[in-house]
Amino acid sequence: MTGRLAIVGLGPGAPELITPLASNILAAATDLVGYAPYLARVPERPGQRRHASDNREELARARQALELATAGKSVAVVSSGDPGVFAMAGAVFEAIEDGKFGWKDIEVTVVPGISAMLAAAARVGAPLGHDFCVISPSDNLKPWDLVLKRLEAAAAGDFVIVLYNPASKARPWQLGEAFRLIARHRAGSTPVIFAHAISQAGERIEITTLGQADPANADMHTLIIIGSSATRLIAKGGRPVFVYTPRHAELVEP
Amino acid sequence: MTGRLAIVGLGPGAPELITPLASNILAAATDLVGYAPYLARVPERPGQRRHASDNREELARARQALELATAGKSVAVVSSGDPGVFAMAGAVFEAIEDGKFGWKDIEVTVVPGISAMLAAAARVGAPLGHDFCVISPSDNLKPWDLVLKRLEAAAAGDFVIVLYNPASKARPWQLGEAFRLIARHRAGSTPVIFAHAISQAGERIEITTLGQADPANADMHTLIIIGSSATRLIAKGGRPVFVYTPRHAELVEP
Repeated sequence: MTGRLAIVGLGPGAPELITPLASNILAAATDLVGYAPYLARVPERPGQRRHASDNREELARARQALELATAGKSVAVVSSGDPGVFAMAGAVFEAIEDGKFGWKDIEVTVVPGISAMLAAAARVGAPLGHDFCVISPSDNLKPWDLVLKRLEAAAAGDFVIVLYNPASKARPWQLGEAFRLIARHRAGSTPVIFAHAISQAGERIEITTLGQADPANADMHTLIIIGSSATRLIAKGGRPVFVYTPRHAELVEP
Repeated sequence: MTGRLAIVGLGPGAPELITPLASNILAAATDLVGYAPYLARVPERPGQRRHASDNREELARARQALELATAGKSVAVVSSGDPGVFAMAGAVFEAIEDGKFGWKDIEVTVVPGISAMLAAAARVGAPLGHDFCVISPSDNLKPWDLVLKRLEAAAAGDFVIVLYNPASKARPWQLGEAFRLIARHRAGSTPVIFAHAISQAGERIEITTLGQADPANADMHTLIIIGSSATRLIAKGGRPVFVYTPRHAELVEP
């Protein structure tokens, strides 16, 4: 008997940002699979089994979940934010495609969640109010030249740019290079947002500019949003309180 | 006495995709403001006033909401999907910036929602599993040359491309031109998803290819996702069942 597998988005952290659909599926699962700190966000239920793993083990975790589903379990793989944006859903589909033939017969559903970019944008206003690009500048799973090509295209296209996973101990210089590349296309006064651990204990938001942005302020829990030429600040008492990108836009030549 | 204003994302349509935070704020509001079909998704509560408006009146609606908050009301402006992605939050901040001085003193919060792109992606797999761009090809509020510039940049950067508001009766030819532009950079076999009214009555999903995509199948309720060179189909019995973009990527020269 083949079971079911749901890949469930927990949102950015706060319980009140988990959808009822996600909560219901988590409550009904026989087995929960995920990175330990994300599993810890899910309320305990008697009889439910938890399979916690380390952060780096995405493909192994996906295969474990598929094995459990093959054995007839009702499995929920938990993911922070939205499972489809730089998260677990990609790993599960890779495992299905490359793995055992029977895995294609498992009933797989993806349950969307509030992604980190939507939560971070909401905290400061509406910086994603117009065309934007979402990029992971990590070169763990792609060549650095592809990162540069995409940053260049996004900067040349005058998109608002969202950076997921902007920095880690193993990638200390990449973010600085990304800022320098974008600064060749945009004014130093362009708004930049560092959003750290949004909706979690330790949430911290910095609104700065491209000219002032310090890559050392980012780590693996930070999401960065870099404005387009149209992105604006609304200040009160000399301090920026909102950042937004208007719905209308003009063609700006570099 | 100045009131409060929340801009609340209702998600794509299904009640079980509205976050508890959004539901709580909607229940506590004295006044709800929004496009009539979105207001109709919110459960009625005794004593709560509703201010329904037409779809085109975004800025007027924002100003009305700010006036109500200035008068001491607790106002919720409702938005489909996420309020910060081509939706009401941008209009509210425009109104605050251009409007009466006192509007900057209103306590404004943005409550994120499951955006249409996340809901659509979840339905078919994980097409947004790697770097992507989000573009409105509408030339209502920006010049068509800027749309072309951004489509060109997104296509050249080998991004997955999400198109919001791809077509309407007033914009009959733009989507075809967008497809032709992208096809100069990508194979005809590139997966394309037409997602119509996701999680609502009348939901319809078409998985096709860039070579076969028919612009006439899109309207104002459709969201389109066009794969990158890495986006893949998983088929079963000859039919595509999942679309995903792997977490790893290679540099592809055109």
